[in-house]
Amino acid sequence: MTNQDTKKQEILSAFNFRHATKIFNPTKKISNVDFTFILETGRLSPSSVGYEPWKFLVVQNKEFREKLREVSWGAQGQLQTASHFVVILARTDARYDSEYVQQLQKRVKNMPEDLLETLKPRYKIFQEEDQRLFESNRALFDWASKQTYIALGNMMTAAAQIGIDSCPIEGFNKDKVNKILESEGLLEDGKLAVSAMVAFGYRAEDPTRPKTRRAMEDVVQWIN
Amino acid sequence: MTNQDTKKQEILSAFNFRHATKIFNPTKKISNVDFTFILETGRLSPSSVGYEPWKFLVVQNKEFREKLREVSWGAQGQLQTASHFVVILARTDARYDSEYVQQLQKRVKNMPEDLLETLKPRYKIFQEEDQRLFESNRALFDWASKQTYIALGNMMTAAAQIGIDSCPIEGFNKDKVNKILESEGLLEDGKLAVSAMVAFGYRAEDPTRPKTRRAMEDVVQWIN
Repeated sequence: MTNQDTKKQEILSAFNFRHATKIFNPTKKISNVDFTFILETGRLSPSSVGYEPWKFLVVQNKEFREKLREVSWGAQGQLQTASHFVVILARTDARYDSEYVQQLQKRVKNMPEDLLETLKPRYKIFQEEDQRLFESNRALFDWASKQTYIALGNMMTAAAQIGIDSCPIEGFNKDKVNKILESEGLLEDGKLAVSAMVAFGYRAEDPTRPKTRRAMEDVVQWIN
Repeated sequence: MTNQDTKKQEILSAFNFRHATKIFNPTKKISNVDFTFILETGRLSPSSVGYEPWKFLVVQNKEFREKLREVSWGAQGQLQTASHFVVILARTDARYDSEYVQQLQKRVKNMPEDLLETLKPRYKIFQEEDQRLFESNRALFDWASKQTYIALGNMMTAAAQIGIDSCPIEGFNKDKVNKILESEGLLEDGKLAVSAMVAFGYRAEDPTRPKTRRAMEDVVQWIN
């Protein structure tokens, strides 16, 4: 078997290893270096037009986790046992003409002023006409939120590749979670809102049911 | 250096290797076994409540690619040069009481009838109240679309880990792409719609600009 074959097998093993872990071993903590690695795969993830419209809150504080638990039925065991618990925020202002995007393009992407001016009308058409993101605040937010799911997927897969378990969570009341986060001053005055959550740690026990997925021929269609 | 350290370094190298490849080497094709591997990481990706609300169209037909190119400004070079070009569809009917979800839960997840009945009201509350997905058709579709971005991210990262380039694409007119797909009978009578596109292949040349990302301290906040 070649090196490449081994690599592919290892990656697929990680996909099969990963499952939505409900209860983690509360005594087993992820090392700092491993958790930094996981966050790094989120940070380095791609996003549409490079807007990186995300922020990762690592909630380690017990009282804070307890508050979240009251409004998150899908994170009951995870909030109590996860080694690391991340609330993924998405930006509400990921539009071409926002202060956030302007600053990102200038300071992070180092785009010169004239390039910025050339791109602006194109990004406007992209967001307004092609994707129709200005139909509602929700449409724009959901678009930013989609990008965070790339980072979410990457972080879970990267974790699985080094034997760390995870659970993605949407089972919470969005409005109530946002209220909690806002009251703690974590939403940058409404520029951020909750997109999803994800817990990391080491499983307390193996899953009882085998992974199921639709068959390849049901999810893939070739147009030759 | 331990095995784990090597693995982490290799994964981060893949994240740094990956960039939005605009032009692929048109003579270099991805092998069937490698492309099947990439698709497999999409198929095995997690999705909210396990709905797998996606389908992957692999568009290899030249005339078909040309049709898409006319309405996809962001895929001009990719459609002409990519070894494999995927249109990712998301379901428009990913709601708890749809035929699709019922069948998936019975036939794929092998859930017994009584469990299905127990879960139904919970999934209803989840979708209707917690996530407010029934506000509009768009809200429900965007939710399904978010799940496809997990698969999108996983496929690109898996590809990068075996030295294959990719480019995620949102630069197209959604309505026009859907019209083309519908006219070819690819949308299951409106049960599917375009979510994103992604091209795979081998880069024609290295990127001219280095990868930029916001700093770790700007994207991560710890609550200790």
